[in-house]
Order: sequence, then structure tokens, then C-alpha cells
Amino acid sequence: MSDTFVIVGGDAAGMSAASKAKRENPEMDVIVFEKGEWVSYAACGMPYYVKGAVENLSDLVTVTPEQFRDERDIDLRTGHEVVEINPGAETVTVEGGSERVEQSYDHLLVGTGATAVEPPFDGLGLDGVFTIHDLPEAEAIEDYVTEYSPDSAAIVGGGYVGIEMAEALSERGLDVSLYETLPHVLQPFGDTLADVVEEHLQTQGVDLHLDTAVSGFDGREAVEHVVLEDNAHAADIAIVGVGVTPNTGLAAQAGIELGDTGAIATDEYGRTNYENVYAAGDCAEARHVVTGEPAHVPLALTANRAGRAIGQTVTGDPEPVGGTAGTAIVKAFELGAARTGIVDEERARAVGFDPVSVSISAPSRAHYYPDGEELTVTLLADCESELVLGGTVVGREGAKRIDTIAMALTAGLTVSELRDSDLAYAPPFSPVWDPVLTAAKVLDGKLGES
Amino acid sequence: MSDTFVIVGGDAAGMSAASKAKRENPEMDVIVFEKGEWVSYAACGMPYYVKGAVENLSDLVTVTPEQFRDERDIDLRTGHEVVEINPGAETVTVEGGSERVEQSYDHLLVGTGATAVEPPFDGLGLDGVFTIHDLPEAEAIEDYVTEYSPDSAAIVGGGYVGIEMAEALSERGLDVSLYETLPHVLQPFGDTLADVVEEHLQTQGVDLHLDTAVSGFDGREAVEHVVLEDNAHAADIAIVGVGVTPNTGLAAQAGIELGDTGAIATDEYGRTNYENVYAAGDCAEARHVVTGEPAHVPLALTANRAGRAIGQTVTGDPEPVGGTAGTAIVKAFELGAARTGIVDEERARAVGFDPVSVSISAPSRAHYYPDGEELTVTLLADCESELVLGGTVVGREGAKRIDTIAMALTAGLTVSELRDSDLAYAPPFSPVWDPVLTAAKVLDGKLGES
Repeated sequence: MSDTFVIVGGDAAGMSAASKAKRENPEMDVIVFEKGEWVSYAACGMPYYVKGAVENLSDLVTVTPEQFRDERDIDLRTGHEVVEINPGAETVTVEGGSERVEQSYDHLLVGTGATAVEPPFDGLGLDGVFTIHDLPEAEAIEDYVTEYSPDSAAIVGGGYVGIEMAEALSERGLDVSLYETLPHVLQPFGDTLADVVEEHLQTQGVDLHLDTAVSGFDGREAVEHVVLEDNAHAADIAIVGVGVTPNTGLAAQAGIELGDTGAIATDEYGRTNYENVYAAGDCAEARHVVTGEPAHVPLALTANRAGRAIGQTVTGDPEPVGGTAGTAIVKAFELGAARTGIVDEERARAVGFDPVSVSISAPSRAHYYPDGEELTVTLLADCESELVLGGTVVGREGAKRIDTIAMALTAGLTVSELRDSDLAYAPPFSPVWDPVLTAAKVLDGKLGES
Repeated sequence: MSDTFVIVGGDAAGMSAASKAKRENPEMDVIVFEKGEWVSYAACGMPYYVKGAVENLSDLVTVTPEQFRDERDIDLRTGHEVVEINPGAETVTVEGGSERVEQSYDHLLVGTGATAVEPPFDGLGLDGVFTIHDLPEAEAIEDYVTEYSPDSAAIVGGGYVGIEMAEALSERGLDVSLYETLPHVLQPFGDTLADVVEEHLQTQGVDLHLDTAVSGFDGREAVEHVVLEDNAHAADIAIVGVGVTPNTGLAAQAGIELGDTGAIATDEYGRTNYENVYAAGDCAEARHVVTGEPAHVPLALTANRAGRAIGQTVTGDPEPVGGTAGTAIVKAFELGAARTGIVDEERARAVGFDPVSVSISAPSRAHYYPDGEELTVTLLADCESELVLGGTVVGREGAKRIDTIAMALTAGLTVSELRDSDLAYAPPFSPVWDPVLTAAKVLDGKLGES
């Protein structure tokens, strides 16, 4: 008897699960329902398509629908929307074309993803106002820039998407203004890193408006201004990137429990409150490796990994989905900016730690070796356990060093254990003490005093 | 009463110890005897001085003798050679200028370093034949190239020094031949990595002679040929870089015990068999973090870290010197090549593991993002414990990712724990699955089969 594995949503989590399940058990019936036409695409690459660094939108597709069907023998049904999950009957109700059918499942994966938040702004419907969360939107932005050659852009939101789009539209020749309601851009990256990025954005010509609330847009047919509390600035195109919200409606209606974060609650195998219903990717929670608590960190690797693990689990070989450290990196013009774990003391206190942190600057290469760049590293630890809790790295080269800190907190290393780790040195690649080690050395000194 | 801390040798280990001891206890008398004139210099930078990437030899000096004396209050005596250690009397005998004096110590650090091996070659005394292990030699090579404009260079030895000098002399316009007695260059980096480097060296115009024994050099005053078993090749300059040997004569004469590696045996605090005599840096052993056994890995970070720890220990606050994973990285023309831990199965078996390994190639950035480069990652683990034992990374960008593997083995992670680590992803910096994670994923699959 062959099991049927039904997957709702054909992006990172869903297609990873489908592929892995088929690889582990080629006899399994694996059916994926995707309401759109695109599957398995790199949403993170969209700003680079707008920028012009990626020529074709289709380059962002890792595996085509045909490949999934023909090479991986997955029953992928694009243009099919699951409109109801019935855990009691173990079926889903699907609309596609003009049909409405019931499909039974032995195992179900909810991989419905997340949607760009649309704030209650006036003028969201004007031409030239975009969010950016799927390929058709990326294409629409690119088309708009090409067709209307706008002079000025208003970016609302200083998260990754906002910053990446600021770079993309600057590269296209637009004057870019960026609006953020908080005192800093990249809020999850902490203030020290944000200071470095903000100075760089300004150097790159971005007109930065922090602590600034946008109320909407005005214009006749198309956007002409971004409207603030007490004035308005000209804008020929506007991008709203103020975060994403997990798509949980379908799950919630079916009695699948949500966690405190608002995303679908899951156990270490990605299971929901129904034993044979799983959730993964941007719609689901994952366990935070530092706090051990459920977190909602909608990032590609977490989605891929969880999907893959669930694909294995449903074939009878249970595999934990892994945790998240919230490790992230973003390119901001010439800078790389990265974070992992818990990066601010307030947040650390809120989850029960007694934090101490340092921030250091050091060159990315030996001081005498050409073309080194300054890296700023922050590192946060718990005073009592001396465990590494998190950190940030920002600079023109070497921000991927964040992985060293991510490894330290994943492995539960103390600050002195990190300091004593044997990292690679040669003049073209690092100072003798890698900047991360220098940060650990300084932080360990501070722990010794306290 | 103020203690006296005497240090033999003013390079990485010695000056780190001196500086740390003074910082922790400004009352301590810290005396460093250095037989040469240079202290605290970056030996690793010498090839880049010859290459022309570093303008002045003095740029390689991190802290000058004057700074050590004036700013750090260290009694640094250059041009002073310790000729005897007398552990019974707790004194050292020192020759400097025309004097010979006894200096008593409460704590002694032996930081005598290592010397480039001089193989029993004919013609080592010819003009134009060099080893490269200290600044005067680097200067002599640079002067020779500038003065005589040699057309051809013979590099003997395919370790880091040989490869870095091949790059340096190619950049200076010489035709470079490289001779290695073993079947591969970079022997401690394993065959898979060596294959990649060798192909690249040839692409860069290096005439590579593997499995080739050199017997010496001939010429009238200056070198004219490198002599092989059955023929000879023209060479206007020759660099011999066949490894280093720890300087242990002084220690051995004093009854300080050497380990099986030939370097000075030490405990976790860097102590020798005499309780108040320490050894660190290129003359001493360090504990290997994978095998737990003593190892001799003469690298800058190990020396710096051990010196620093000993500088703290002698002030009454004991600090372990830390282990070594043998993590190393080398630039070979356009490539970065890196290793950590145990990288070949034969070596793993010799120390009691049941090894399994994989080698994968993956892009350094998202597949659609411009200017990504192929990275080749090898990963080795123990079948029974599934612990990560070591690995290598080679490619035109991103070889510093070796640090992720170094962290995994330092922390004692299994392959699946490495695979599940949350590393940073964004298209300009990595594929969704970092190449190191991909290697772990593939290796974990292989472990599952065995």
C-alpha cells in the first residue's frame, strides 16, 4: 500500500519536502497544490532582478514545474488552491480550473508561506505603489521602472527588503528616500550595526528618514507623493516593505493550533496538533536554538531544512526539523550586514538572561595586506553561564564571519571557548586574531571583571 | 615583592606573553631576550613583501621594540642571546654585546621558535639560493630580484611557503618552476584540495614538478641550475621551503622534555616538566582538539594565544593555552585553500577513527547571482560517533568558510548537528544551503547508509 503525502504550497518548504519524500520512497504518492504558477523560486533574488544583476525572472527558479513532474515524479498541480483542510476526514478541498475536489491524505504538510504586510495606508491602490513578495510583483516593478523611468523612489520600511530595494533602485538611477518608523533600520540587527549601515546608506545617496511615520501616498492615477505626518515628499514609485505575516487562515480554520508568535505551532519534527499534519516554512514556528522557545523567523534555509526533514519523516524515518538561530545576512550597497542569535541586551533580559556585550572594530585582513576593510563585530553573552547568545558583523568584506558566531551559539560554547577556537589565518584572509576572536577576547575580559 | 618573568625569544608567543603579563600585573619585571633585532613581526607577510604587495619590511612589524619598551614597560633586550637555561638555579645565561650575564627568573617562557629546514642539498651556499624564515632573508630575496632581475625561479617544496613564493615571484615577472618530492602539493591539505590547487598553479603558468626529488643546485658564484636525479633545469634564483623544525636545543640541554613530535612537551597551561618553565609557539607542542594528542603545528594564532595565556598564568590567574585544530588557509594565486582537523582517511585511521568522507562542489553565491565561484568542500567524520573530524575548502572566494568546520570540530558536533546549523544566507553571499552545509548533508546521507 502506498501512502499519499499532500502538500499545500509549492515553495521552499513544500518542494523540499516533496523532493525528499520521493527520494526516500519512490512509491509514495506526493501531490503538491500550488495556487500560483511559480514554484520553488528564490524570493530573496527579486531585488537583484529589479536591480538588473539578474537578467531573467526565470533565473530565480531553481527547479521548474516540468522538472518536478518529469524528473522527480511529483504530482505538482499549479493553479490549484486548497480552500479547506479537513483533519477529521483526512482530506483537503481543492479548487483548480473549474473543479472542486476532495483529496485524501495520509500525511499533510501546510507550507502556505507568508504575505507582505499591507499597512492601513491611503493610496495603496495607486499605480506605482508596490509590495514585493512574489515574482509577478517583482516583474511589475521592473516593468514600471523600465516603462516610466521614474526619477524618485520612496521605500517604506528599513528591513532587508527595503534596503535591498534601495540599492536596486539607486542602481537603476533613481533618487531613493527610505522611511522607517523606528529610530533605526534593520531593527533585528541591533543599534551598533544599524549605525554603520545608516551612515553607509547616506554615503550612497539614500535620503534616510528615521523615526518617520508614513501615512500613505497621493497622486491622481499614479503615485506622486509619499505622505508623512506633516508634509509630503515627491515619489514616482513607492515600495512598501514593512514585514511579512504568516498565512495561517487555512490552518486556523481547520483547528490547527497557532503559537504565540501567530505562526503555526509545531514540535521538533514539524508536527502540528494533528499527528499527521505538519507545517513548515514562513507559515510555521521553529525552535530558537538560544532560547529554546518557539520563534517565527521566516527565512529560506529554515524552510528548506524543515521541509526536507518532514519529507523524510513521512516516509517512516523521523528526522527533527532543526532549530533557528535567526541567522541572517543582507547586502546594503557595498556593505554586508549580518546577525545571529540574540543581539540586544533588552531582548536577552526579556528571555531571562543577564547579558553583557561588546562591540569592536578590526580589519578584515592583516593590517599590512592591501584592500582590507574594517569589520565591526558585536558579541553578546550571558554573565552567569558565559554562553554566547548572539552577535552581529558588518563591513565591506567578511560579514559571512557571522557563521562562526552562529556555530558558537548552536554548539552552546562559552565566550572563552569561542575565543580559543582555532580559526584560519593568513594575511590575505584575516588578522592573526580573526575579528570574531578579538570580540570574544574583549568580551571574555569584560566577563572576568563582572 | 615583584616577580621576574623572563622570556626567551621576542616573536609571537614571547611578546604576547610579555604584553599580557604586564597588563595583568604592571609590577612584574618582564624581561625579553631576543637574539635578533626584529621582534613581533609577521613572518606570514614576507611573501607579500617579495611580491610587492607590502611596500616596506617595517610594515610587517606589529609593535616596534620602542613601543614595547616605552608604552608597555617591557624590558626588551634585542641582540641578546640566551645560551643556557639553568632550571636548578632558576637562571638563564645571556650573551649580549660583549657581556655574558646570569639572569634569575621566577617564571620562564621558552619561545625560541622554529627554523627553516635546510635539506642536505649541494650548492645551498650559492648566491641566489634562499630559505625564507625571517625578515633579513625576505629582504635579501627582494634585493636579489631587484638587483639581478632573474628570469627563472626554482621553488623547492610545495607547502604554503613554496606556493606563496611561487605567486610572489610570478608577480615579479619570473618564470616559476615548483618541485615537490611528494605526489601532491600542500600535503597537509589532502589530495582533493591539492588537485584543485595544482590545476590552478598550472593555469597560472607555474611549471609544476610533482614526485620530483631535488638534489641541489649548481652554478659558479650564483645558482644557475636546480639539479634533479637525472637532469637539471635552469634557475636564476632558488627558494627552499621544505618545512620548519622547532628550535629545541637550548631547552633539551637544560633537561626540558621534548615530545614525540620533536617539539617541547607542554601541559594544558603551556608548562614544561619544570613547574615554572613554560614553552609556547613554534618550538612547542599543543593539544590537538580532535585527537586530544600533542601536536606540533607551528602557526601564528596558536603561538599568540598560548603566549597570551601564559602571560596571564604567571600573574597568578591560570589560563589554559587552548588547543589547535591545525586550521590553516593559504592564498595560491587566485585561490583560497583551507584545512582544519583531520583531512585524510589514512591519518584518521592511524589515530583510531573509522573515517568516512565526501567531497562536493557548490557555488559560493546563489546560482543566479553574478560573480559566484565554485567552492570544493571535503568533510571527514567518524562512522561510529558521527563526529566531524576535519575538512577542506578551496575556491576563488569563500575559503574562510573553513572556520565553520573548525567550529564544528572544536565544539564536538556530529555531522547532522553541523548540517542543522543555522548559517547566513542571502544571494550575494551564499546559496540557501551554504556549501559547508551541503557537504554535511551529503556526508550525513553516507553515514546513514553505512
